[in-house]
Amino acid sequence: MAHKTDIEIARAAEKRLIQEVGAKLGIPAGDLLPYGHDKAKVGAEFIAGLKDRPNGKLILVTAINPTPAGEGKTTTTVGLGDGLARIGKKSAICIREASLGPCFGMKGGAAGGGYAQVVPMEDMNLHFTGDFHAITSAHNLLAAMIDNHIYWGNDLGIDQRRVTWRRVMDMNDRALRDVVCSLGGVANGFPRQTGFDITVASEVMAILCLATDIHDLQRRLGDIIVGYTRERTPIHARDLKADGAMTVLLKDALQPNLVQSLENTPAFVHGGPFANIAHGCNSVMATTTALKLADYVVTEAGFGADLGAEKFMNIKCRKAGLAPSAVVIVATVRALKMNGGVAKADLGAENVDAVRAGCANLGRHIENVKSFGVPAVVAINHFAGDTEAEIAAVQDFVAGQGSEAILCKHWAEGSAGTEALATRVVELAEQDHHAFAPLYPDEMGLFAKIETIAKRIYRAGEVIADKKIRDQLHAWEEAGYGNLPICMAKTQYSFTTDPNLRGAPEGHSVPVREVRLAAGAGFVVAICGEIMTMPGLPSKPAAETIGLNDMGQIEGLF
Amino acid sequence: MAHKTDIEIARAAEKRLIQEVGAKLGIPAGDLLPYGHDKAKVGAEFIAGLKDRPNGKLILVTAINPTPAGEGKTTTTVGLGDGLARIGKKSAICIREASLGPCFGMKGGAAGGGYAQVVPMEDMNLHFTGDFHAITSAHNLLAAMIDNHIYWGNDLGIDQRRVTWRRVMDMNDRALRDVVCSLGGVANGFPRQTGFDITVASEVMAILCLATDIHDLQRRLGDIIVGYTRERTPIHARDLKADGAMTVLLKDALQPNLVQSLENTPAFVHGGPFANIAHGCNSVMATTTALKLADYVVTEAGFGADLGAEKFMNIKCRKAGLAPSAVVIVATVRALKMNGGVAKADLGAENVDAVRAGCANLGRHIENVKSFGVPAVVAINHFAGDTEAEIAAVQDFVAGQGSEAILCKHWAEGSAGTEALATRVVELAEQDHHAFAPLYPDEMGLFAKIETIAKRIYRAGEVIADKKIRDQLHAWEEAGYGNLPICMAKTQYSFTTDPNLRGAPEGHSVPVREVRLAAGAGFVVAICGEIMTMPGLPSKPAAETIGLNDMGQIEGLF
Repeated sequence: MAHKTDIEIARAAEKRLIQEVGAKLGIPAGDLLPYGHDKAKVGAEFIAGLKDRPNGKLILVTAINPTPAGEGKTTTTVGLGDGLARIGKKSAICIREASLGPCFGMKGGAAGGGYAQVVPMEDMNLHFTGDFHAITSAHNLLAAMIDNHIYWGNDLGIDQRRVTWRRVMDMNDRALRDVVCSLGGVANGFPRQTGFDITVASEVMAILCLATDIHDLQRRLGDIIVGYTRERTPIHARDLKADGAMTVLLKDALQPNLVQSLENTPAFVHGGPFANIAHGCNSVMATTTALKLADYVVTEAGFGADLGAEKFMNIKCRKAGLAPSAVVIVATVRALKMNGGVAKADLGAENVDAVRAGCANLGRHIENVKSFGVPAVVAINHFAGDTEAEIAAVQDFVAGQGSEAILCKHWAEGSAGTEALATRVVELAEQDHHAFAPLYPDEMGLFAKIETIAKRIYRAGEVIADKKIRDQLHAWEEAGYGNLPICMAKTQYSFTTDPNLRGAPEGHSVPVREVRLAAGAGFVVAICGEIMTMPGLPSKPAAETIGLNDMGQIEGLF
Repeated sequence: MAHKTDIEIARAAEKRLIQEVGAKLGIPAGDLLPYGHDKAKVGAEFIAGLKDRPNGKLILVTAINPTPAGEGKTTTTVGLGDGLARIGKKSAICIREASLGPCFGMKGGAAGGGYAQVVPMEDMNLHFTGDFHAITSAHNLLAAMIDNHIYWGNDLGIDQRRVTWRRVMDMNDRALRDVVCSLGGVANGFPRQTGFDITVASEVMAILCLATDIHDLQRRLGDIIVGYTRERTPIHARDLKADGAMTVLLKDALQPNLVQSLENTPAFVHGGPFANIAHGCNSVMATTTALKLADYVVTEAGFGADLGAEKFMNIKCRKAGLAPSAVVIVATVRALKMNGGVAKADLGAENVDAVRAGCANLGRHIENVKSFGVPAVVAINHFAGDTEAEIAAVQDFVAGQGSEAILCKHWAEGSAGTEALATRVVELAEQDHHAFAPLYPDEMGLFAKIETIAKRIYRAGEVIADKKIRDQLHAWEEAGYGNLPICMAKTQYSFTTDPNLRGAPEGHSVPVREVRLAAGAGFVVAICGEIMTMPGLPSKPAAETIGLNDMGQIEGLF
């Protein structure tokens, strides 16, 4: 079994018609808008009719800091969803959509891996149901309306040097990072310097993923700040009357997409905001819909728990009124070894001491997760080369932390490999702690919120920010944005801002280099490192080997 | 009835499930890839299995030169499709998809009008089945791969001053017409001047619409010339290994879309190339598929017959091996009056003399259409203000030309209003002339082809082109492109290159200002006027009033 590739396994899947998958959750066929036979959107009216139903239990899957060894967070999310179904629970999976552009650079990815995948894999790596294209259109319509407004007389007095709204494309295209537009004379407008980001970095993406319904979507779109006048007065998308048309473009995209796992567990795959300059979780619409339809909803957040789980709790759960019933922290023996100082080339050899040393990273994440008032369990995502002694070392360490680490073999065995994890998750969730709370209150000052995250989650000694940044934060507080949560943008590889510092460092400094206001999405981004919002293609892009084979199947995409 | 707007009529339509519409043509439900309940793509495998079936009869709907008074070509195409069904023929309609961008400038359009429309109207004006987004992605992937190739060492020796492949966006955005990209330093590449066109102007669009299957699509994509070396050697998309990935992106888009008319007649709405720098017809895949499934297929071509029908015959039919069995030339009393010199403000008053004078334009188109060896009939698209004397004047004129002009009231009455037209079309088509031939042979020289079109269709006295243009045409002939047809790009409002010269002028000069080689699409574009490949938004863009109403319906788009 394990010799097959992900795509071979995915293609051999016995998919059910999407109407049958929807029926598992009680969605009538007429309320599914099919996209082919294996994908559908769940109709907005059906969703609106669910609002008085009780919620199922929400399980977050997060991970230790990522390493090149791989952790398998999505694989575990899918495997746990299948495992819960196996033990008789009505379960659903909620994960993010893939971005098209990067698939033509490095190879595109499965949603999950081995026998714990969501399908159809090809579609999910390509256009899927068109959500990202709709976001691109809405974003760029606003951009066109800005330059058009200036062109036709600029009644709003937009300072073209202070237009902050760029354009987006779902493509890795470094040539578009920095451009001068409106060249060519009077008929083409006023030349100015601007650029393109990749679509997943669009604030429209973050908005779509945080909106609770179509009205909230339009309100947030209207709140977007696109630039400023010479007097520094903000100009909103609403001032340009762009919010209505943007909402129309996003009407279908807001409806969650339903697909299935290899074991036919319903999976909502919807939205995909960046995990650095945005919050990195699938859409609120998908998660809240799934919670009305399933007893257990398994979801994940981007990067490690320091970034992903923190933002899931402090941004998504806070804003959507969600409370996770349990958190699964994924670790692998290999990744713990790397956290313990082993180089990638040496991962094949047993090294129990390194595993023990690397557990410091895991331990820090367990503490952090519990600090939100939520029970945690560790999933050891099994690799063939793991030794019994290494696995025992992880389990002993976690037991010493008052938690449990459960060996999971979903990659090789599907739901049979997560039965134990699923059982333990149900035990934890059914204890119903009701102790969940975000880390900081809305009314805390913006800089104090940054300090709180840095000190309590990263265990930093201090946050460094120059006067200009502090003044900017104060100005936003004065303007009424002080109640927003913080979206931290820093390296995912370390608790610090140095990607090479693995393990569990503490007492370090966190320098805030820049802050950005995402008034529509509803957070303030604190940038603590280099953020690349438009990737480039590598010297041998995957696109060169992507094509159709003689059977009409896609080759080279995976 | 006639007091309802197009959108009100469209929303009141009793749509059938798309599977029922497909069943009318014998398409099994499993071979339809649904997009919601009222749209579907017809599966590639099903289409491949049709190739040995006989073809139905192809009817082209074209028109006199367009005027601000409106002709109703699409409305008549839809009305005739319904009329053929009414008289017991298995009929299908083939029209183009709408472009998203322009809908946010001027109001978006119905596909047809009154009681002769194709639905769902909202979807067809927005993302529809995502075809145009796929084309945008494929086009821009190639663009990214060009700059990426140069960035990583430029093994092919592309001269960055001679990159002819621009980028595209489905948006009216004048700020993108002329840009400098790759600014910002070493990591962003080599700065160069370039720009964006609207997606419908992409050569990828023309290719998708001319491709006969997925293999032909990939071959054509590979043939695209993206630029030249310093030594003027062309660089093809194939040299960049982009053709495979582009094909993968377009795999679904190549499958024709099926929707329905208000009377549930199957309608293929697929592809939408510019009618100036491209050939302006719906896809070959849709037309050939429809011909295998229906006894009568009604289609249309962009602009008036001088541009639209000429390219339909000389490019689409030639390349796809199609032969129309009859041509319907649409005229209105109002538009003939404008051709006869009446200003738009004065169209309300009866003016039989002006109608008679304007008939010169109609007569010229009848002659031209017959010169392709195809029988022609005129459809008078009835407007409420037309007088009996005016209508009689048109009918008398056309009878004098040896043809027939039939009054059609499909806008107000649906298929009841085209019964006579449908009956006459069937009579003409069943005579089976088999006399169709394109205007010029493949082996004629490129400049001679331009002269042939200008003299025989436009009745010009001469074609003017400076030495540089003639040399360029010779160079392409030397390089093996001499067998390509010509795609004329000139004003649609006149037989001349002056948009104000209505009626039937002759003996004028046609200046060719520029020629372009579309090696993938397979034609040489001869530009005889200003061609705008990226529109701008007006001072009060429609986007400002587009939004959702309290019932969740889209307002302002139509």
